[in-house]
Amino acid sequence: MRTGLLKKRSAKAGLPPGSLVHIGEAKPVRSKITVLRYNEEECEEFEAGDVERCLALKDLPGVTWIEIEGISHAETIEKIGQRFDLHPLLLEDIMNSDQRPKIEDYDEYLFVVLKKIRFDEKGLTLYAEQISMVLGPRFVITFHESEGGIFDPVRLLLKSGKGRIRKLGADYLVYSLIDVVVDNYFVVLEGLGESIEGLEARLIANPGASILKAMQALKGSTIYLRKAVWPLREVINSMERDQSPLIQSSTHVYLRDVYDHTVHIMDTIEAFRDTLAEMLDIYLSSISNRMNEIMKVLTIIATIFIPLTFIVGLYGMNFEYMPELKLRWGYPAVLLIMLAVCIFMVFYFKRKKWF
Amino acid sequence: MRTGLLKKRSAKAGLPPGSLVHIGEAKPVRSKITVLRYNEEECEEFEAGDVERCLALKDLPGVTWIEIEGISHAETIEKIGQRFDLHPLLLEDIMNSDQRPKIEDYDEYLFVVLKKIRFDEKGLTLYAEQISMVLGPRFVITFHESEGGIFDPVRLLLKSGKGRIRKLGADYLVYSLIDVVVDNYFVVLEGLGESIEGLEARLIANPGASILKAMQALKGSTIYLRKAVWPLREVINSMERDQSPLIQSSTHVYLRDVYDHTVHIMDTIEAFRDTLAEMLDIYLSSISNRMNEIMKVLTIIATIFIPLTFIVGLYGMNFEYMPELKLRWGYPAVLLIMLAVCIFMVFYFKRKKWF
Amino acid sequence: MRTGLLKKRSAKAGLPPGSLVHIGEAKPVRSKITVLRYNEEECEEFEAGDVERCLALKDLPGVTWIEIEGISHAETIEKIGQRFDLHPLLLEDIMNSDQRPKIEDYDEYLFVVLKKIRFDEKGLTLYAEQISMVLGPRFVITFHESEGGIFDPVRLLLKSGKGRIRKLGADYLVYSLIDVVVDNYFVVLEGLGESIEGLEARLIANPGASILKAMQALKGSTIYLRKAVWPLREVINSMERDQSPLIQSSTHVYLRDVYDHTVHIMDTIEAFRDTLAEMLDIYLSSISNRMNEIMKVLTIIATIFIPLTFIVGLYGMNFEYMPELKLRWGYPAVLLIMLAVCIFMVFYFKRKKWF
Amino acid sequence: MRTGLLKKRSAKAGLPPGSLVHIGEAKPVRSKITVLRYNEEECEEFEAGDVERCLALKDLPGVTWIEIEGISHAETIEKIGQRFDLHPLLLEDIMNSDQRPKIEDYDEYLFVVLKKIRFDEKGLTLYAEQISMVLGPRFVITFHESEGGIFDPVRLLLKSGKGRIRKLGADYLVYSLIDVVVDNYFVVLEGLGESIEGLEARLIANPGASILKAMQALKGSTIYLRKAVWPLREVINSMERDQSPLIQSSTHVYLRDVYDHTVHIMDTIEAFRDTLAEMLDIYLSSISNRMNEIMKVLTIIATIFIPLTFIVGLYGMNFEYMPELKLRWGYPAVLLIMLAVCIFMVFYFKRKKWF
Amino acid sequence: MRTGLLKKRSAKAGLPPGSLVHIGEAKPVRSKITVLRYNEEECEEFEAGDVERCLALKDLPGVTWIEIEGISHAETIEKIGQRFDLHPLLLEDIMNSDQRPKIEDYDEYLFVVLKKIRFDEKGLTLYAEQISMVLGPRFVITFHESEGGIFDPVRLLLKSGKGRIRKLGADYLVYSLIDVVVDNYFVVLEGLGESIEGLEARLIANPGASILKAMQALKGSTIYLRKAVWPLREVINSMERDQSPLIQSSTHVYLRDVYDHTVHIMDTIEAFRDTLAEMLDIYLSSISNRMNEIMKVLTIIATIFIPLTFIVGLYGMNFEYMPELKLRWGYPAVLLIMLAVCIFMVFYFKRKKWF
Repeated sequence: MRTGLLKKRSAKAGLPPGSLVHIGEAKPVRSKITVLRYNEEECEEFEAGDVERCLALKDLPGVTWIEIEGISHAETIEKIGQRFDLHPLLLEDIMNSDQRPKIEDYDEYLFVVLKKIRFDEKGLTLYAEQISMVLGPRFVITFHESEGGIFDPVRLLLKSGKGRIRKLGADYLVYSLIDVVVDNYFVVLEGLGESIEGLEARLIANPGASILKAMQALKGSTIYLRKAVWPLREVINSMERDQSPLIQSSTHVYLRDVYDHTVHIMDTIEAFRDTLAEMLDIYLSSISNRMNEIMKVLTIIATIFIPLTFIVGLYGMNFEYMPELKLRWGYPAVLLIMLAVCIFMVFYFKRKKWF
Repeated sequence: MRTGLLKKRSAKAGLPPGSLVHIGEAKPVRSKITVLRYNEEECEEFEAGDVERCLALKDLPGVTWIEIEGISHAETIEKIGQRFDLHPLLLEDIMNSDQRPKIEDYDEYLFVVLKKIRFDEKGLTLYAEQISMVLGPRFVITFHESEGGIFDPVRLLLKSGKGRIRKLGADYLVYSLIDVVVDNYFVVLEGLGESIEGLEARLIANPGASILKAMQALKGSTIYLRKAVWPLREVINSMERDQSPLIQSSTHVYLRDVYDHTVHIMDTIEAFRDTLAEMLDIYLSSISNRMNEIMKVLTIIATIFIPLTFIVGLYGMNFEYMPELKLRWGYPAVLLIMLAVCIFMVFYFKRKKWF
Repeated sequence: MRTGLLKKRSAKAGLPPGSLVHIGEAKPVRSKITVLRYNEEECEEFEAGDVERCLALKDLPGVTWIEIEGISHAETIEKIGQRFDLHPLLLEDIMNSDQRPKIEDYDEYLFVVLKKIRFDEKGLTLYAEQISMVLGPRFVITFHESEGGIFDPVRLLLKSGKGRIRKLGADYLVYSLIDVVVDNYFVVLEGLGESIEGLEARLIANPGASILKAMQALKGSTIYLRKAVWPLREVINSMERDQSPLIQSSTHVYLRDVYDHTVHIMDTIEAFRDTLAEMLDIYLSSISNRMNEIMKVLTIIATIFIPLTFIVGLYGMNFEYMPELKLRWGYPAVLLIMLAVCIFMVFYFKRKKWF
Repeated sequence: MRTGLLKKRSAKAGLPPGSLVHIGEAKPVRSKITVLRYNEEECEEFEAGDVERCLALKDLPGVTWIEIEGISHAETIEKIGQRFDLHPLLLEDIMNSDQRPKIEDYDEYLFVVLKKIRFDEKGLTLYAEQISMVLGPRFVITFHESEGGIFDPVRLLLKSGKGRIRKLGADYLVYSLIDVVVDNYFVVLEGLGESIEGLEARLIANPGASILKAMQALKGSTIYLRKAVWPLREVINSMERDQSPLIQSSTHVYLRDVYDHTVHIMDTIEAFRDTLAEMLDIYLSSISNRMNEIMKVLTIIATIFIPLTFIVGLYGMNFEYMPELKLRWGYPAVLLIMLAVCIFMVFYFKRKKWF
Repeated sequence: MRTGLLKKRSAKAGLPPGSLVHIGEAKPVRSKITVLRYNEEECEEFEAGDVERCLALKDLPGVTWIEIEGISHAETIEKIGQRFDLHPLLLEDIMNSDQRPKIEDYDEYLFVVLKKIRFDEKGLTLYAEQISMVLGPRFVITFHESEGGIFDPVRLLLKSGKGRIRKLGADYLVYSLIDVVVDNYFVVLEGLGESIEGLEARLIANPGASILKAMQALKGSTIYLRKAVWPLREVINSMERDQSPLIQSSTHVYLRDVYDHTVHIMDTIEAFRDTLAEMLDIYLSSISNRMNEIMKVLTIIATIFIPLTFIVGLYGMNFEYMPELKLRWGYPAVLLIMLAVCIFMVFYFKRKKWF
């Protein structure tokens, strides 16, 4: 995943700027287009099998939300671009699923790029998909790399007619969509947090080499999440601060709220990183403690036997005149002496708190 | 506590923004409402069992302070929100006890979030509760997660009528409340400081594994405290700097004073972190020193005996023609030689300052 | 390459500013000059063997692009400088191939310095060449240290007449050239990425000393690339932001796009650096693990034999009265005892999880 | 000293703001008040045993400098506060000797807090005392925690009438006092520098555990000094930059000069910290070198004797048919072989540069 | 050199500001004064043995450059100060050779302080001298701590009349002098670079303790150089940016060029620091590798002999009933068994890749 951050963009080297080539993993499915049109009174949704039909809708009253699932089909993107008068570079960015979260102001519309993230609790890795949004005066177009299920809560809310959402404009819809994506990050954070806690428990029970790998995977996921959230913060901040006529001032307070959520996510990510760093310290010190303990016990055993081995070697010498060897009680005396040496050393080590 | 920074916010994923759901540990107690109304001449306090009764008070002359203990009861919060015309997102923030300290300016009122912190000297951990405040033109509403005893000194001061507090407006009351919270941080700091000093003494006496855990707990507490104070600093700074009409210029000098206190707290926290980092260094170096010492002494013992063991092995050989073995004084001579070798090596090691 | 960042600039110490001395590795080839002149309708290209002929072209209608390959020939540079009225310090910078990427605004023209980079997958090092560009109202002059093949895609595009490029001005040409250079960085990034992945595979298979060298070479390359891209970012940013009349506002959106690419490159470089840092950690820990494993196994072997050697030494003593020695079953009994000691220790070590 | 940074401020928790309680180490001595009044022509000094008498002086022509030694007597501070119309929070700050250096602008007067520092060369620690100054239009009041001897040079200069000081206003007097305090920091720096150099010499001669403690004490002192100087820099900078009418523009150039001195002090402190960090590296590497050297020599000795011990053990075997044992020259031959093995191993180790 | 950054400034503590005392190493030589006066047509130079004579020159037409070598003679400095109306603090700064590079704008003249640096390739240390410059409307005064030979190229250029220098004003002269100083830093950089490369070669050949010292000396020199160049960058930047009437706008482009050079120097210094950090890593890992290798080989030797020693001890036992001892082929069989054990262990170690 790490070096995988770099998708094969070199395929574009040499092409003129604005060429529509899909950069990303190959998912050459045909785009699915869903249109949802609403105003305070009513809300209708239909699937537009044909791009043309969908495009005829632009000038209707109320807010129109066009959701496009699948971005690898260049022709669809191009047609929508022509119909809504989108800049070629913007279309290029939509098809290139390898963008940082960003916002761009094209005067007549705002262009927002986000990342949808899913946490795989088995592999401890994150999977990201790009979501692009175009906010016009009375329309919103969203582009998903694959499926758009993440926006279902907003869709349901729109259909049910509850809350403020149908009374407010396209800018509030974009806010709601961003809010759903950010709420989703909290789910990812909880998955990460639980994995970290589980790992912490395993670490205390039995620190093995597999834990090191899991810690590195989690650290990588944490860094990746931060890379997705950090620029998003700037995106939301600039939506709130820049006085774009497309965003009404009543929406600012909601944007400030999402902004607070991203700050909160960043804080939690920092806390996770601290925890992981601490766990690594604990892991390393437990490994080195175990090694030190082994060396210590073994060395102590060796040291107790070294003087004893010297003594038995001493009475293994073949001198003719060694009076001790002739003594009846020589052998038991030596055994006692060795026992005494042994006891003395154990006491000495104990008193020095060596074990 | 670390990963516990993340409360189950995912419970809200999918709900429309502004939904009132209590996020935090479950404390579903009924809210207790205390109202305190005062002006320069008089001060009356009563407990408002019923929300309605409390709400009828808004338009009285003087300053009204409504203190609400317990935030898990959505209905109470909602009623107060309606009566005082508070923004739904603000109410959401009050019920979500998982906020960073922050200030938000809603033109007609200011919204301030703080953390009340208690230090548990046994577990060396911190416990935080959220305090939210709404400052209106002539009223202050404070929300506590559980009990509000921390504000008793201000309450007593108001009742006694001493000092300036009754002569000044609601903004001075808010300042006084913040001041009490910040003063409380000094108590936490002292608890932390004493625990650190106690640990330092234990560390010098006998560095064991339990000390490492205590150091990490204290480090975690220090980081947590910093996370509470750092944004508070910004809150107070923006109260002083932003020209909100709700805060009179005469209060600015007091806010600057609390600001100085928060700077002071940050300095002390930094000093604590330095001390803890130094203690970790001392701990690690004392562990490694002890291990080195063990290895050194044991290796020296081994080394002294290795040549001796060689010598006794030499005269344990079974050659027929070994003239030394026949000598009457062979055995004592070898004993003397070994003693000499032993003495020489001890001197050699001493001169090399190896022990 | 590292210290090689410093070319022999001291050769110039003492000369008055503006002296034209080529600083860089000696490539005293004669400059090759190619002129390409185009407008919306037509495009002609010819090689100008003589500087004079090329210089006569300035005042023609349309955009003129003069490409100069080889910068060591002072006379050519000087003549062009005189003809286009370029500042002496600018000419000095062109000949001194030891510049950071930068942009300088001389009112009548912009001066841009970039680095063309090639990655040598064998040596894992980067080779850089300097490209200087002068953007005037209706002309562009590019200077290459050696060959200019990198710009061939732009040349082909101009000749083919496809896309917008022939309809737009000299500023768009400069943008296209910069875009080509930046696209080329992606090729370098992919080469680096593949080398890093290959190294990662080798690292897991068998961590040897050669891997450390390769890691350091790749780290050096990564740092070098960052040094080339970081200031380039600023260059593009200031082209977009500064309101130079030489750059039309319609080109700004394209510059913002290249700017995004440089940000992306910086992100990828950071990811590479993280990966390399992690690989170094893995390398170091695998080296130290292997050493620890060796020490552990050997120490355990030694420890098992130490008590056994003591026992055999014990019965090698020459006391006259050692009743065990006379026993018929003494020898097998001792062998059994030693086997028991051996088994006990292996079990003890196993239970302590020492191997 | 480290955790001692936190004085018992909690004693104030719960008191209303502005309560005058002395925070600091208990020095309940009665304040000593010295008044010095001067203008261009004359200068008179007297000790004002009574606060009242001193206070009657305010409206005299010329500049009045009131120096108060001892700040623990609340009544004195309060009276002066009333007489000069000082803000209650300012008086609180004066009595609380636990402030960071700071400047506060109360429109009618400036309030400056500084630290006087003394270096104890024995204990390698710093002792700080707080100096507070109030600069009014034609008066200066200085408050010392204990004695005010540090200002004697300014006092002498005023009495002697030399230099510009008597011709200029109260702002120049404050500048002169700050200048004296900053000059004093250079004395502290020199003491620190000499201690560091002395320690460096001892470190090279014989690195022992006491040196580690001394290094940590010096590091702590360096950090403490930085904490005193860093905010002072800001104080002086804001005196120069902010256009307070109390500071004449002719004094700005002098303030800039003191500012340069503080920058210089910060630079030197950084250099000290670098030196101390380097010394720690040298200390750690010399400790580990010595340990490595011990292990190496001892292991080499052990290794030389291991094969020899094997050989002597070989000929200690009791096989009946060992032809070598019967040989007349067997014993000397084995001795020679062992000598050869010994020499070979020493040569081998030498060639491998192991010792 | 490190702690030597602090010269005995405490000698001034207590003196009134503006007292002229030379701070720096004692070089009490009499100042040598050289005057060079030029305009577009002519250029005359003479040595002014007497200060008075030199001072009479100020009001002549053309540009006057007064060079003063030796700053320890207070009287000379004072006279020049009076004649040119220089501020006392400026004179103090000139005599105090312990300044950071800085620029100060005294409205009627600019004051610039720089450092001239020489690299001692033997000691691997830097020697710095201070150069102060005063730029007036039509005069430049330069002050050197000792000799002024560094400016000879400018002097020659002025006398020769080549280039632009005689046509331009005093500001261009100051630029030329700064340019010479910065060009000189490149010479220092090359010396440093060559020393680092030489050290790198020695490091690979044979890493010894002397290399560590050399690396630390070079690191210290690098840090010192950075301390001289970093503020100089700001000096030049503020000369270019601030709209002082003393500097004509035509000189700005030249200042920007020198500014680029200082940026380049900073980059190279950073590269040197990276290289030195890498070399330290290589040094440390080669030391630890060698130690590990020694330990490994020795431990392997020990481990091979431990079982063999056990076997020979086994047959050294004195049991009466050990049937093997009676066997004719017992001895050779044991020798063969030991050989087999030996070969098995060597193969085992080889297969485990332990050596």
